[in-house]
Amino acid sequence: MKVITFGEPLLRFTTEAEKRLHQVDQLAFYFGGAEANLAVSLANFGHEVEFVSAIPPNSLGSACRKYLKANSVKTNFLREQGSRLGTYYVEAGIGNRQANVTYDRAYSSFHLVDESIFDWDQIFLDVDHFHTTGITLALSDKLREITLVAMQKAKEKGISVSFDFNYRAKLWSQSEARDAIQKVLPYVDVAFCNQLDAIHFLDIEESKSEKHEDKLKEYYQNIVEKYPNISALSSTKRAVHSSNKHELEGYFYDKQQLVKSKSYVIDPVVDRIGGGDAYAAAILHGWLNQWPLTDTVDFATASSVLKHTIKGDSNAFTELEVKSYLSLLDQEISR
Amino acid sequence: MKVITFGEPLLRFTTEAEKRLHQVDQLAFYFGGAEANLAVSLANFGHEVEFVSAIPPNSLGSACRKYLKANSVKTNFLREQGSRLGTYYVEAGIGNRQANVTYDRAYSSFHLVDESIFDWDQIFLDVDHFHTTGITLALSDKLREITLVAMQKAKEKGISVSFDFNYRAKLWSQSEARDAIQKVLPYVDVAFCNQLDAIHFLDIEESKSEKHEDKLKEYYQNIVEKYPNISALSSTKRAVHSSNKHELEGYFYDKQQLVKSKSYVIDPVVDRIGGGDAYAAAILHGWLNQWPLTDTVDFATASSVLKHTIKGDSNAFTELEVKSYLSLLDQEISR
Amino acid sequence: MKVITFGEPLLRFTTEAEKRLHQVDQLAFYFGGAEANLAVSLANFGHEVEFVSAIPPNSLGSACRKYLKANSVKTNFLREQGSRLGTYYVEAGIGNRQANVTYDRAYSSFHLVDESIFDWDQIFLDVDHFHTTGITLALSDKLREITLVAMQKAKEKGISVSFDFNYRAKLWSQSEARDAIQKVLPYVDVAFCNQLDAIHFLDIEESKSEKHEDKLKEYYQNIVEKYPNISALSSTKRAVHSSNKHELEGYFYDKQQLVKSKSYVIDPVVDRIGGGDAYAAAILHGWLNQWPLTDTVDFATASSVLKHTIKGDSNAFTELEVKSYLSLLDQEISR
Amino acid sequence: MKVITFGEPLLRFTTEAEKRLHQVDQLAFYFGGAEANLAVSLANFGHEVEFVSAIPPNSLGSACRKYLKANSVKTNFLREQGSRLGTYYVEAGIGNRQANVTYDRAYSSFHLVDESIFDWDQIFLDVDHFHTTGITLALSDKLREITLVAMQKAKEKGISVSFDFNYRAKLWSQSEARDAIQKVLPYVDVAFCNQLDAIHFLDIEESKSEKHEDKLKEYYQNIVEKYPNISALSSTKRAVHSSNKHELEGYFYDKQQLVKSKSYVIDPVVDRIGGGDAYAAAILHGWLNQWPLTDTVDFATASSVLKHTIKGDSNAFTELEVKSYLSLLDQEISR
Amino acid sequence: MKVITFGEPLLRFTTEAEKRLHQVDQLAFYFGGAEANLAVSLANFGHEVEFVSAIPPNSLGSACRKYLKANSVKTNFLREQGSRLGTYYVEAGIGNRQANVTYDRAYSSFHLVDESIFDWDQIFLDVDHFHTTGITLALSDKLREITLVAMQKAKEKGISVSFDFNYRAKLWSQSEARDAIQKVLPYVDVAFCNQLDAIHFLDIEESKSEKHEDKLKEYYQNIVEKYPNISALSSTKRAVHSSNKHELEGYFYDKQQLVKSKSYVIDPVVDRIGGGDAYAAAILHGWLNQWPLTDTVDFATASSVLKHTIKGDSNAFTELEVKSYLSLLDQEISR
Amino acid sequence: MKVITFGEPLLRFTTEAEKRLHQVDQLAFYFGGAEANLAVSLANFGHEVEFVSAIPPNSLGSACRKYLKANSVKTNFLREQGSRLGTYYVEAGIGNRQANVTYDRAYSSFHLVDESIFDWDQIFLDVDHFHTTGITLALSDKLREITLVAMQKAKEKGISVSFDFNYRAKLWSQSEARDAIQKVLPYVDVAFCNQLDAIHFLDIEESKSEKHEDKLKEYYQNIVEKYPNISALSSTKRAVHSSNKHELEGYFYDKQQLVKSKSYVIDPVVDRIGGGDAYAAAILHGWLNQWPLTDTVDFATASSVLKHTIKGDSNAFTELEVKSYLSLLDQEISR
Ligand SMILES: [Ca+2]
Ligand SMILES: [Ca+2]
Ligand SMILES: [Ca+2]
Ligand SMILES: [Ca+2]
Ligand SMILES: [Ca+2]
Ligand SMILES: [Ca+2]
Ligand SMILES: [Ca+2]
Ligand SMILES: [Ca+2]
Ligand SMILES: [Ca+2]
Ligand SMILES: [Ca+2]
Ligand SMILES: [Ca+2]
Ligand SMILES: [Ca+2]
Ligand code: NI
Ligand code: NI
Ligand code: NI
Ligand code: NI
Ligand code: NI
Ligand code: NI
Ligand code: NI
Ligand code: NI
Ligand code: NI
Ligand code: NI
Ligand code: NI
Ligand code: NI
Ligand code: NI
Ligand code: NI
Ligand code: NI
Ligand code: NI
Ligand code: NI
Ligand code: NI
Repeated sequence: MKVITFGEPLLRFTTEAEKRLHQVDQLAFYFGGAEANLAVSLANFGHEVEFVSAIPPNSLGSACRKYLKANSVKTNFLREQGSRLGTYYVEAGIGNRQANVTYDRAYSSFHLVDESIFDWDQIFLDVDHFHTTGITLALSDKLREITLVAMQKAKEKGISVSFDFNYRAKLWSQSEARDAIQKVLPYVDVAFCNQLDAIHFLDIEESKSEKHEDKLKEYYQNIVEKYPNISALSSTKRAVHSSNKHELEGYFYDKQQLVKSKSYVIDPVVDRIGGGDAYAAAILHGWLNQWPLTDTVDFATASSVLKHTIKGDSNAFTELEVKSYLSLLDQEISR
Repeated sequence: MKVITFGEPLLRFTTEAEKRLHQVDQLAFYFGGAEANLAVSLANFGHEVEFVSAIPPNSLGSACRKYLKANSVKTNFLREQGSRLGTYYVEAGIGNRQANVTYDRAYSSFHLVDESIFDWDQIFLDVDHFHTTGITLALSDKLREITLVAMQKAKEKGISVSFDFNYRAKLWSQSEARDAIQKVLPYVDVAFCNQLDAIHFLDIEESKSEKHEDKLKEYYQNIVEKYPNISALSSTKRAVHSSNKHELEGYFYDKQQLVKSKSYVIDPVVDRIGGGDAYAAAILHGWLNQWPLTDTVDFATASSVLKHTIKGDSNAFTELEVKSYLSLLDQEISR
Repeated sequence: MKVITFGEPLLRFTTEAEKRLHQVDQLAFYFGGAEANLAVSLANFGHEVEFVSAIPPNSLGSACRKYLKANSVKTNFLREQGSRLGTYYVEAGIGNRQANVTYDRAYSSFHLVDESIFDWDQIFLDVDHFHTTGITLALSDKLREITLVAMQKAKEKGISVSFDFNYRAKLWSQSEARDAIQKVLPYVDVAFCNQLDAIHFLDIEESKSEKHEDKLKEYYQNIVEKYPNISALSSTKRAVHSSNKHELEGYFYDKQQLVKSKSYVIDPVVDRIGGGDAYAAAILHGWLNQWPLTDTVDFATASSVLKHTIKGDSNAFTELEVKSYLSLLDQEISR
Repeated sequence: MKVITFGEPLLRFTTEAEKRLHQVDQLAFYFGGAEANLAVSLANFGHEVEFVSAIPPNSLGSACRKYLKANSVKTNFLREQGSRLGTYYVEAGIGNRQANVTYDRAYSSFHLVDESIFDWDQIFLDVDHFHTTGITLALSDKLREITLVAMQKAKEKGISVSFDFNYRAKLWSQSEARDAIQKVLPYVDVAFCNQLDAIHFLDIEESKSEKHEDKLKEYYQNIVEKYPNISALSSTKRAVHSSNKHELEGYFYDKQQLVKSKSYVIDPVVDRIGGGDAYAAAILHGWLNQWPLTDTVDFATASSVLKHTIKGDSNAFTELEVKSYLSLLDQEISR
Repeated sequence: MKVITFGEPLLRFTTEAEKRLHQVDQLAFYFGGAEANLAVSLANFGHEVEFVSAIPPNSLGSACRKYLKANSVKTNFLREQGSRLGTYYVEAGIGNRQANVTYDRAYSSFHLVDESIFDWDQIFLDVDHFHTTGITLALSDKLREITLVAMQKAKEKGISVSFDFNYRAKLWSQSEARDAIQKVLPYVDVAFCNQLDAIHFLDIEESKSEKHEDKLKEYYQNIVEKYPNISALSSTKRAVHSSNKHELEGYFYDKQQLVKSKSYVIDPVVDRIGGGDAYAAAILHGWLNQWPLTDTVDFATASSVLKHTIKGDSNAFTELEVKSYLSLLDQEISR
Repeated sequence: MKVITFGEPLLRFTTEAEKRLHQVDQLAFYFGGAEANLAVSLANFGHEVEFVSAIPPNSLGSACRKYLKANSVKTNFLREQGSRLGTYYVEAGIGNRQANVTYDRAYSSFHLVDESIFDWDQIFLDVDHFHTTGITLALSDKLREITLVAMQKAKEKGISVSFDFNYRAKLWSQSEARDAIQKVLPYVDVAFCNQLDAIHFLDIEESKSEKHEDKLKEYYQNIVEKYPNISALSSTKRAVHSSNKHELEGYFYDKQQLVKSKSYVIDPVVDRIGGGDAYAAAILHGWLNQWPLTDTVDFATASSVLKHTIKGDSNAFTELEVKSYLSLLDQEISR
């Protein structure tokens, strides 16, 4: 299938985990950003994917484009304008010490786009699916308008739409987010939304259930009542035992049932950045292929777990590799 | 004592564990191969060891020879011929992600040897022990013949012989292996052989016992009935909790009793390659020195555990270092 | 324009220049091969390029494909079969010490292809130009046949053809090369051929002129008499003062005149591998665009010089970057 | 406050943990030494700190001085004399393998100082606190005298004094240590002293209590009876599960009560060297600021835990960073 | 003497010279900026130096402060505000290939300062000299005003002032620069100004002399006529043979005579960034110490040459080291 | 032939050339020492070589032994005693900047040997040649005696002796050296001695000739008159254009004639340390094999030039490699 993702590419600089920033004199760098990561994952799963965005016409922009192409993501609508890539610095955490993130992403090329540079009729030619996240909405009023227009066009053309709440407190307030998110939700088919998102942005009351699953199902039922256009909802539950040891579960809801994946202990966590995008991409892959609910959530959680074992923001695994990881686990259980 | 090992040297390229192969632009390399690894370990334990094999007359062959010499292994019978070293690529695994191995070992210098290049009378001058493995048998019909001849000569000269089954499914079928192994076993004094080996290659029926030890003892008793020339049998039991966390035990049998080592949790596993060879070398070291059975199996398992904590295929520890590790463990227990 | 290149991808391992192979424990690696390098250069100059070849279905093949894609080369006809990439090891030279090259390229996936895997009618759809080199001819009888067929098909379809003699003494004898080259030349429009090539493979007598230019012109006139289909001939002249200091000139002939580029001192030479392919690609770029002869040879030589300043086999410069380097030189001269 | 620390700077060379010393061709290096480490920590906590010592007048001495300055430690009394820095080599341990330390610290610049080079009246101008350790006492008779004089001067001037037993069996015998320590203790306000120290150096009988806390309290009560000038005593309890996994608790006593910190599992231990100095510095920080006992011991243990997560000998965390780590832990508990 | 420098700290990321930006996955970084570099040099020469500026209150700002402290530069007036350090990316050049610089320095902490944050009466306490450059003037109107006020205050307090034209076309136009520079020059004692600066910013007619020295002397005479307050002028002449081979001379004028240094061939140029600041710092060092004119210009040029042999923006040599380099050269000449 | 070399092994730490010591946090290390380097070279040329010395019984000593073994040098008389290896630090120079060396070699294991540990009768069994240098004499009175005894024993047994003056001003005075050298010279067959050595240590008057060759011949004639036992003398002449560009010539004298090698420009000089030992080893190789004088001096100078192109103290080239370098040069000249 042909998929469009829309959002900001980011340049990440990162220390090696065993030193603080002031102890080093070089930094590894990776390209990422939620929507770019999802694009790479879906391309690895065999889809034709375009990443729609803006980069500066300089050597960093050009390196970013090469990264996307190497990962089979098309860049025909990656406009060149402005003067910088959004950047952030990660002092990697380890064991008892948390990572320390320093943002330097204001004034980026994508940040400053206006509507004139994206011709959605052209972009949406022969397209099956459109994806974006709350981060894109957060960046500017202009980007909120552009996204809304894009979603409306998508629906008109019969293109399905997915949306990941991805709330970033450093980018906008909860009330700004609430307004913007409620405006786009009527055009969404698949939403990635966790418990706090439901409470903060959709005015749903806190559940009184005990178990995570019961609460989440309650919230999701509420959401699909408000937005009957939404046909699927998903999220993960993560427990952080240390910077290097997490526990992860996936949840997927289709209006009929809420299914839950196997629970994975991830030890060590090599790089958690992009773990959520790897999950979302894999959920979409199952949804677009109309896989059974359980298969999809298992595939997505395994996909995210594998992402945690490599450095870099995006998932470097094919459908075959994720599935062979899953079947390996099955064998171990059945022994 | 003077020991001969006979087999193929291998060139291993390996990624750093936190990235996939396509993410890197350089690879670490190590020299290894089961019989070369065992030679290095025995040299570290103070034996005079010759590694008999073939390498190409080029800079890679020469680097391989330097590696062996640096580790006190003699290379007087390391013939130069052919054009390549057997090579393999390891995309190192970590945590939830398994290692991924790509072989490129066909057409190697050793692969293509014929009988004319090894003069066993000269090689076996003043020799006490001869060791090889199933990998050598697997490489060619010619090598099967050469090995059989070498073992026969060894027995004639009163040289003891050890053999590690080391079955590699990528090199030959089970039925080919069965034929070849059954031909060499009548000349063997010490065999490294696990439960599956017994079942697949020696036509022994699957045991009905529950416990690992009981089963293994049953198999070993069966083997020494068939091959009364065999005076000792050994193997390890490994549980893989994740790519980084294994559990290891050693077992050693001398026709009278089966002894078992302490069980070790290895966390992290730095490099498991060569762990089995480190174990076999240490068992041989105890056997050649006629150490008590329990001392030998403890020494061997500790030796293998230490190997797992360093990069590279061969064991870089002296007898003194392994023993001081063992005594350290004793103290901890006795506190 | 749309261009097809056809040949073997190579995996190169290389030391850092200041140590010998046995002094290091890791090696940098690059993907290359004459026809792949030319593909990357032409893609950097804005052409649509397909690299037609075969790679093994393993992680090394897959990394090779990603490398090509990252450089905008299409890989739709990069077949997966066989088990290995052609490999070679470069102990980099420096100053008074020459590089030392160890080949390990036999039995590669491309080496072993047969005609069935390439459907030239499909490959040549909408294609403007086809390029290959003498290396492809050298690899097997089968590849000689396949190449001849491809060239004939190209001519039938009005596709122009270029051929780089690229004689490698380690791959075949001069007499084998002579036969094969003389068979393909009648289908060639642009040939990369130096003085020795003319003498060894085209049975042209050694010139009695003094100057390089006069000799070369004589040879080229002879060639176009024999092969009137050839419309352009080109080569470079390189003086090697030390491993780090070369001098380079380009020559280009179009049946009317032989033009010569500015002479460049390259100091230091970072990596000479691929320098010839960078030159050939740039000559083709000028020829395909019908640039004036002098512009083309200047552009090509500058392009090759820039290649010498970066590590890796292929030219990482755009037309704009090469031209801005040329204009910088002009300014310096005019001051 | 203004603090003086007095002792030997050390140069540490260290392998990467995954290889043995003979496998590598480069070593990371760090500057350390117990009293220098404590100086860096206190400077990070906002104190004005002078490190009083001697370094050689060469490029290593100069790099050492730059390291201290970069960490805001003053070096006005860092004398230049002699010819070498005390040096040691750490073959880093990992998992089941212990670190292996090789000392090369004899004949250092500090080792060879005599009394003439330190003018304590000038050094102690406007100073609030003086710190040193048993290592300084161990280095020479001269240094024992110098230290004793310095402590006496400190007391005369109303400067508080702390002393860390820090017994090193490689530097002196228990009986030498006993004599020297008993001579300085009458001038000490805060002592870092564990159970074995109390038994070996202060002739206190082994306790019959069961629990670590009861024993320690008994020893500390005994000590303050003997040395009523001591107003506070502290130590940690460390359990070593593997080279990478430790468990750590802090204990602090003020004549009235013995308080105990939360217990921390440290996994992985990146670098344990300097962990004790990080603890002592933080205890002093609390004591100098007259923080409540419990706050101090929690702050100190957290401080030491964080040190274990970075490479290098000294603690690179500010008071704010340690406190935010503590409050993070509180949140986790209260959830 | 006590010196104040005032300007923007910069964060530089740089590739290794032998690869283009898109070929690497990590970058070395250095702290620099003309006024910070000069501060470090003067501190290395033994002066007490404060660097007055603004940095963001984050881990990058803090690493920048540590860098300055390690180099003995005081940071008491390094204000924390805003959110970013000015940043730039250098794709290092080599041989025939030029460096390629990408700026990302807008919106920095220093860029956005207003007058309220610098209290010049406090800053100038006991100060002997004040230095800034045209870059500071270029950053904002506010910074032009602040600088003018600072210079006026300096003159009132009898503090000498130096100014380096340092024109950056990417930051402002020539006419903006002309206005601002002409406003500050009446307060300047020492100016770093080359021929083009004189022509572009001081409306001096192009000279008709042939020789560099004659021209420069003419311009400098013109300048001191216009600005009799200026007591010394200096500049370098650089010939760029390749990215790795430069030729450098220094010129210094004191109203009476123009002296010229020895001419140096710099081969290889390791890092040219900061070479001009190293020169200016050394000229100031001689001027402040009232060294003979010739000694000063020789010292300054040698100082700059040494800077070109190390990576990083600032000069890491002491007065003694520069002088011993000079005396070494003398010996060579006298042999 | 079987050769003994006798002297101190050294541990060298070295920066990468482009940074000063205080800018780095890791150092490369190499094993060297004049007599060890010569041993490695001769082993590479095919001789059986023993290096007689002392190392500490620790992990550094053990790594040093492995290095020698890897290079085919025997270590049967490498005694383990004392506590340290002689160490030195090289801040590598580049271009206009000289290297900066910091010694830390006092109190080494070899330094402190006494006569009891070397049994020369055993060491000299079946030996053909003995080599040592002035450095060994410089280390202690004891070592002077031991060396003298060893040389006397060698002569008694018909073993030829070579001696390299190798004067190090940091180790002893000229007058001490004069006494010691004059004592050993009567036992020497081949001496490495340059003009200044002749003047300073052998009381030969400064020559009045103009040309280097004439002077040297005069000195050498004088020496063989004084010491008729000496049958050959050799030295090099080195011009240092920059840290990276040297010019080197070799001179060899056999009582009849003084021959001179081709002159080599070495650009770049990767590592000059050990260049002299590489030369001496190759001269000895020619002398022991009774090669013609001219062949020997050409071989030796080429050997030394190649050493300058690799990092590390010892020559890593075989006789074949040096000769193929020489024949390559011949071809270039004859073209
Ligand atoms: Ca790690
Ligand atoms: Ca990462
Ligand atoms: Ca890389
Ligand atoms: Ca690790
Ligand atoms: Ca390994
Ligand atoms: Ca270089
Ligand atoms: Ca390269
Ligand atoms: Ca290495
Ligand atoms: Ca460390
Ligand atoms: Ca630099
Ligand atoms: Ca570093
Ligand atoms: Ca070196
Ligand atoms: Ni790492
Ligand atoms: Ni790393
Ligand atoms: Ni790394
Ligand atoms: Ni690592
Ligand atoms: Ni690593
Ligand atoms: Ni390099
Ligand atoms: Ni490098
Ligand atoms: Ni490198
Ligand atoms: Ni690491
Ligand atoms: Ni590492
Ligand atoms: Ni590493
Ligand atoms: Ni590292
Ligand atoms: Ni470099
Ligand atoms: Ni490098
Ligand atoms: Ni380098
Ligand atoms: Ni480097
Ligand atoms: Ni390097
Ligand atoms: Ni390096």
